[in-house]
Amino acid sequence: MRLSRFSDLSLRALMYLGTHPDRWISSGELAERMSVSRDHLMKTLQSLSDAGHVQSKRGREGGFTLADSAGEVRIGALVRTLEPSLAMAECFEPGSTCPLTPDCRLADALAEAQRRFFESLDRYTLTDLLRANRPQLVQLGGPTR
Amino acid sequence: MRLSRFSDLSLRALMYLGTHPDRWISSGELAERMSVSRDHLMKTLQSLSDAGHVQSKRGREGGFTLADSAGEVRIGALVRTLEPSLAMAECFEPGSTCPLTPDCRLADALAEAQRRFFESLDRYTLTDLLRANRPQLVQLGGPTR
Repeated sequence: MRLSRFSDLSLRALMYLGTHPDRWISSGELAERMSVSRDHLMKTLQSLSDAGHVQSKRGREGGFTLADSAGEVRIGALVRTLEPSLAMAECFEPGSTCPLTPDCRLADALAEAQRRFFESLDRYTLTDLLRANRPQLVQLGGPTR
Repeated sequence: MRLSRFSDLSLRALMYLGTHPDRWISSGELAERMSVSRDHLMKTLQSLSDAGHVQSKRGREGGFTLADSAGEVRIGALVRTLEPSLAMAECFEPGSTCPLTPDCRLADALAEAQRRFFESLDRYTLTDLLRANRPQLVQLGGPTR
Protein backbone atom coordinates (compact mmCIF):
# COMPACT_ATOMS: atom_id res chain seq x y z
CA MET A 1 0.00 0.00 0.00
CA ARG A 2 1.97 2.83 -1.38
CA LEU A 3 1.11 6.01 -3.17
CA SER A 4 1.78 5.83 -6.87
CA ARG A 5 5.07 7.29 -8.05
CA PHE A 6 3.05 9.98 -9.78
CA SER A 7 1.26 11.02 -6.55
CA ASP A 8 4.51 10.90 -4.61
CA LEU A 9 6.31 13.16 -7.10
CA SER A 10 3.32 15.50 -7.40
CA LEU A 11 2.97 15.96 -3.64
CA ARG A 12 6.68 16.50 -3.18
CA ALA A 13 6.77 19.01 -6.03
CA LEU A 14 3.88 20.94 -4.46
CA MET A 15 5.53 20.89 -1.04
CA TYR A 16 8.85 22.01 -2.49
CA LEU A 17 7.27 24.84 -4.47
CA GLY A 18 5.32 25.79 -1.37
CA THR A 19 8.47 26.12 0.70
CA HIS A 20 9.80 28.66 -1.80
CA PRO A 21 6.84 30.95 -2.29
CA ASP A 22 8.86 33.98 -3.33
CA ARG A 23 10.52 32.75 -6.49
CA TRP A 24 9.94 30.75 -9.66
CA ILE A 25 11.53 27.32 -9.40
CA SER A 26 13.03 25.87 -12.57
CA SER A 27 12.22 22.30 -13.54
CA GLY A 28 15.96 21.61 -13.47
CA GLU A 29 16.23 22.68 -9.83
CA LEU A 30 13.15 20.67 -8.87
CA ALA A 31 14.38 17.58 -10.71
CA GLU A 32 17.78 17.81 -9.07
CA ARG A 33 16.36 18.30 -5.58
CA MET A 34 13.93 15.43 -6.07
CA SER A 35 16.48 13.12 -7.69
CA VAL A 36 14.34 12.43 -10.74
CA SER A 37 14.86 12.97 -14.44
CA ARG A 38 13.69 16.30 -15.77
CA ASP A 39 11.58 14.55 -18.43
CA HIS A 40 9.81 12.53 -15.78
CA LEU A 41 9.20 15.58 -13.65
CA MET A 42 7.89 17.65 -16.56
CA LYS A 43 4.96 15.28 -17.00
CA THR A 44 4.13 15.72 -13.33
CA LEU A 45 4.40 19.51 -13.53
CA GLN A 46 2.32 19.64 -16.69
CA SER A 47 -0.40 17.64 -14.99
CA LEU A 48 -0.31 19.84 -11.88
CA SER A 49 -0.49 22.86 -14.15
CA ASP A 50 -3.46 21.43 -16.05
CA ALA A 51 -5.22 20.85 -12.72
CA GLY A 52 -4.60 24.46 -11.75
CA HIS A 53 -2.33 23.68 -8.82
CA VAL A 54 0.81 25.27 -10.21
CA GLN A 55 1.57 28.25 -12.44
CA SER A 56 4.40 28.41 -14.89
CA LYS A 57 6.36 31.24 -16.45
CA ARG A 58 8.45 30.81 -19.57
CA GLY A 59 11.89 32.23 -20.11
CA ARG A 60 15.23 32.35 -18.42
CA GLU A 61 13.83 33.73 -15.18
CA GLY A 62 10.80 31.49 -15.39
CA GLY A 63 9.81 28.28 -13.77
CA PHE A 64 7.03 27.05 -11.55
CA THR A 65 5.25 28.30 -8.48
CA LEU A 66 2.18 27.27 -6.51
CA ALA A 67 -1.08 28.65 -7.87
CA ASP A 68 -2.90 30.94 -5.46
CA SER A 69 -5.69 28.42 -5.00
CA ALA A 70 -3.40 25.46 -4.35
CA GLY A 71 -2.97 26.20 -0.67
CA GLU A 72 -6.65 25.57 0.02
CA VAL A 73 -6.71 22.14 -1.58
CA ARG A 74 -7.43 19.38 0.91
CA ILE A 75 -4.74 16.71 0.83
CA GLY A 76 -7.20 13.82 0.70
CA ALA A 77 -9.02 15.35 -2.24
CA LEU A 78 -5.69 16.01 -3.91
CA VAL A 79 -4.46 12.44 -3.52
CA ARG A 80 -7.80 11.11 -4.77
CA THR A 81 -7.31 12.99 -8.03
CA LEU A 82 -3.61 12.13 -8.33
CA GLU A 83 -3.86 8.38 -7.82
CA PRO A 84 -4.32 6.57 -11.13
CA SER A 85 -6.67 4.10 -9.41
CA LEU A 86 -8.42 3.91 -6.07
CA ALA A 87 -8.97 0.18 -6.44
CA MET A 88 -7.53 -1.33 -3.27
CA ALA A 89 -7.89 -4.88 -4.52
CA GLU A 90 -8.94 -6.85 -7.58
CA CYS A 91 -12.58 -6.84 -6.48
CA PHE A 92 -12.80 -3.03 -6.60
CA GLU A 93 -12.56 -3.09 -10.37
CA PRO A 94 -15.19 -3.91 -12.93
CA GLY A 95 -14.78 -7.40 -14.27
CA SER A 96 -13.45 -8.84 -11.01
CA THR A 97 -13.15 -12.60 -11.31
CA CYS A 98 -13.05 -13.25 -7.56
CA PRO A 99 -15.91 -15.62 -6.72
CA LEU A 100 -16.48 -13.86 -3.40
CA THR A 101 -17.60 -10.67 -5.16
CA PRO A 102 -20.08 -9.03 -4.47
CA ASP A 103 -21.01 -10.64 -1.15
CA CYS A 104 -17.61 -10.31 0.49
CA ARG A 105 -17.41 -8.15 3.58
CA LEU A 106 -13.65 -7.80 3.20
CA ALA A 107 -14.19 -5.43 0.28
CA ASP A 108 -16.49 -3.31 2.47
CA ALA A 109 -13.91 -3.25 5.26
CA LEU A 110 -11.19 -2.18 2.83
CA ALA A 111 -13.40 0.53 1.34
CA GLU A 112 -14.22 1.82 4.82
CA ALA A 113 -10.53 1.88 5.78
CA GLN A 114 -9.74 3.76 2.60
CA ARG A 115 -12.39 6.35 3.49
CA ARG A 116 -10.76 6.80 6.91
CA PHE A 117 -7.42 7.27 5.17
CA PHE A 118 -8.74 10.06 2.97
CA GLU A 119 -10.76 11.65 5.78
CA SER A 120 -7.59 11.85 7.82
CA LEU A 121 -5.71 13.53 4.95
CA ASP A 122 -8.66 15.87 4.34
CA ARG A 123 -8.09 17.42 7.76
CA TYR A 124 -5.17 19.28 6.19
CA THR A 125 -4.78 21.73 3.37
CA LEU A 126 -1.48 22.24 1.63
CA THR A 127 -1.20 25.53 3.51
CA ASP A 128 -1.66 23.74 6.84
CA LEU A 129 1.25 21.45 6.05
CA LEU A 130 3.44 24.23 4.70
CA ARG A 131 2.81 26.43 7.74
CA ALA A 132 3.76 23.58 10.00
CA ASN A 133 7.04 22.81 8.29
CA ARG A 134 8.18 26.03 6.69
CA PRO A 135 10.55 27.28 9.43
CA GLN A 136 12.97 24.46 8.73
CA LEU A 137 12.35 23.96 5.07
CA VAL A 138 12.48 27.48 3.77
CA GLN A 139 16.22 27.44 4.20
CA LEU A 140 16.61 24.55 1.80
CA GLY A 141 16.63 26.46 -1.41
CA GLY A 142 19.02 29.18 -0.41
CA PRO A 143 18.09 32.83 -0.13
CA THR A 144 14.66 33.86 -1.35
CA ARG A 145 13.66 37.28 -2.60
CA MET B 1 -2.70 3.12 -3.25
CA ARG B 2 -3.44 -0.51 -3.67
CA LEU B 3 -2.74 -3.57 -1.65
CA SER B 4 0.12 -5.61 -3.01
CA ARG B 5 -0.83 -8.55 -5.21
CA PHE B 6 0.48 -10.78 -2.44
CA SER B 7 -1.82 -9.26 0.20
CA ASP B 8 -4.76 -9.34 -2.18
CA LEU B 9 -4.28 -13.03 -2.95
CA SER B 10 -3.61 -13.89 0.69
CA LEU B 11 -6.75 -12.16 1.94
CA ARG B 12 -8.89 -13.69 -0.77
CA ALA B 13 -7.48 -17.14 -0.06
CA LEU B 14 -8.26 -16.75 3.64
CA MET B 15 -11.78 -15.53 2.91
CA TYR B 16 -12.39 -18.36 0.46
CA LEU B 17 -11.10 -21.00 2.88
CA GLY B 18 -13.20 -19.40 5.60
CA THR B 19 -16.36 -19.73 3.55
CA HIS B 20 -15.76 -23.47 3.30
CA PRO B 21 -14.93 -24.40 6.88
CA ASP B 22 -16.00 -28.01 6.59
CA ARG B 23 -13.66 -29.33 3.95
CA TRP B 24 -10.06 -29.24 2.76
CA ILE B 25 -9.71 -27.04 -0.30
CA SER B 26 -7.19 -28.11 -2.92
CA SER B 27 -4.74 -25.58 -4.31
CA GLY B 28 -6.14 -26.39 -7.74
CA GLU B 29 -9.67 -25.40 -6.71
CA LEU B 30 -8.43 -22.24 -5.03
CA ALA B 31 -6.29 -21.27 -8.03
CA GLU B 32 -9.18 -21.84 -10.40
CA ARG B 33 -11.65 -19.87 -8.31
CA MET B 34 -9.19 -17.02 -7.89
CA SER B 35 -8.08 -17.02 -11.54
CA VAL B 36 -4.39 -17.30 -10.73
CA SER B 37 -1.74 -19.84 -11.58
CA ARG B 38 -1.36 -22.68 -9.11
CA ASP B 39 2.39 -21.95 -8.79
CA HIS B 40 1.67 -18.36 -7.89
CA LEU B 41 -0.93 -19.37 -5.36
CA MET B 42 1.27 -22.01 -3.75
CA LYS B 43 3.74 -19.33 -2.64
CA THR B 44 0.89 -17.46 -1.01
CA LEU B 45 -0.44 -20.57 0.71
CA GLN B 46 3.02 -21.56 1.89
CA SER B 47 3.49 -18.15 3.43
CA LEU B 48 0.07 -18.25 5.11
CA SER B 49 0.93 -21.70 6.40
CA ASP B 50 4.29 -20.48 7.76
CA ALA B 51 2.46 -17.66 9.54
CA GLY B 52 0.09 -20.16 11.11
CA HIS B 53 -3.03 -18.85 9.39
CA VAL B 54 -3.77 -21.97 7.35
CA GLN B 55 -3.32 -25.68 7.86
CA SER B 56 -2.53 -28.12 5.11
CA LYS B 57 -3.09 -31.84 4.68
CA ARG B 58 -1.24 -33.89 2.12
CA GLY B 59 -2.77 -36.54 -0.08
CA ARG B 60 -5.63 -36.96 -2.47
CA GLU B 61 -8.22 -35.83 0.04
CA GLY B 62 -5.93 -33.10 1.34
CA GLY B 63 -5.70 -29.41 0.77
CA PHE B 64 -5.92 -26.30 2.86
CA THR B 65 -8.18 -25.01 5.59
CA LEU B 66 -8.14 -22.06 7.99
CA ALA B 67 -6.14 -22.65 11.13
CA ASP B 68 -8.22 -22.49 14.32
CA SER B 69 -6.52 -19.28 15.41
CA ALA B 70 -6.92 -17.51 12.07
CA GLY B 71 -10.43 -16.33 12.81
CA GLU B 72 -9.24 -14.12 15.66
CA VAL B 73 -6.63 -12.28 13.60
CA ARG B 74 -7.40 -8.60 13.24
CA ILE B 75 -7.48 -7.58 9.60
CA GLY B 76 -5.29 -4.51 10.10
CA ALA B 77 -2.64 -6.57 11.84
CA LEU B 78 -2.89 -9.16 9.11
CA VAL B 79 -2.44 -6.66 6.28
CA ARG B 80 0.50 -5.07 8.11
CA THR B 81 2.32 -8.40 8.06
CA LEU B 82 1.31 -9.25 4.49
CA GLU B 83 2.34 -6.01 2.83
CA PRO B 84 5.94 -6.17 1.62
CA SER B 85 6.42 -2.53 2.60
CA LEU B 86 4.44 0.01 4.60
CA ALA B 87 6.34 2.89 3.02
CA MET B 88 3.65 5.18 1.64
CA ALA B 89 6.14 7.39 -0.16
CA GLU B 90 9.83 7.67 -0.90
CA CYS B 91 10.45 9.57 2.34
CA PHE B 92 9.26 6.67 4.49
CA GLU B 93 12.30 4.64 3.55
CA PRO B 94 15.85 4.87 4.81
CA GLY B 95 18.06 6.72 2.38
CA SER B 96 15.32 9.04 1.15
CA THR B 97 16.81 11.67 -1.12
CA CYS B 98 13.90 14.09 -0.82
CA PRO B 99 15.29 17.39 0.49
CA LEU B 100 12.13 17.99 2.52
CA THR B 101 12.89 15.02 4.78
CA PRO B 102 12.78 15.04 7.82
CA ASP B 103 11.00 18.35 8.38
CA CYS B 104 8.10 17.72 6.06
CA ARG B 105 4.66 17.61 7.61
CA LEU B 106 3.26 15.77 4.60
CA ALA B 107 5.04 12.61 5.74
CA ASP B 108 3.42 12.98 9.17
CA ALA B 109 0.00 13.45 7.59
CA LEU B 110 0.46 10.35 5.42
CA ALA B 111 1.64 8.28 8.40
CA GLU B 112 -1.38 9.43 10.41
CA ALA B 113 -3.74 8.55 7.58
CA GLN B 114 -2.12 5.14 7.27
CA ARG B 115 -2.69 4.57 11.02
CA ARG B 116 -6.37 5.43 10.54
CA PHE B 117 -6.52 2.94 7.68
CA PHE B 118 -5.16 0.12 9.83
CA GLU B 119 -7.21 1.11 12.87
CA SER B 120 -10.31 0.86 10.75
CA LEU B 121 -9.34 -2.62 9.53
CA ASP B 122 -8.44 -3.66 13.08
CA ARG B 123 -12.09 -3.27 14.07
CA TYR B 124 -12.69 -6.59 12.33
CA THR B 125 -11.40 -10.09 12.74
CA LEU B 126 -11.53 -12.61 9.93
CA THR B 127 -14.41 -14.26 11.80
CA ASP B 128 -16.34 -10.98 11.88
CA LEU B 129 -16.07 -10.68 8.11
CA LEU B 130 -16.89 -14.33 7.49
CA ARG B 131 -19.93 -14.20 9.75
CA ALA B 132 -21.18 -11.16 7.90
CA ASN B 133 -20.87 -12.68 4.46
CA ARG B 134 -21.20 -16.40 4.91
CA PRO B 135 -24.92 -16.78 4.12
CA GLN B 136 -24.34 -15.86 0.49
CA LEU B 137 -20.85 -17.20 0.05
CA VAL B 138 -21.12 -20.63 1.55
CA GLN B 139 -23.06 -21.73 -1.50
CA LEU B 140 -20.18 -20.91 -3.79
CA GLY B 141 -18.22 -24.07 -3.40
CA GLY B 142 -21.04 -26.51 -3.70
CA PRO B 143 -22.12 -28.87 -0.94
CA THR B 144 -20.02 -29.03 2.19
CA ARG B 145 -19.72 -31.91 4.61
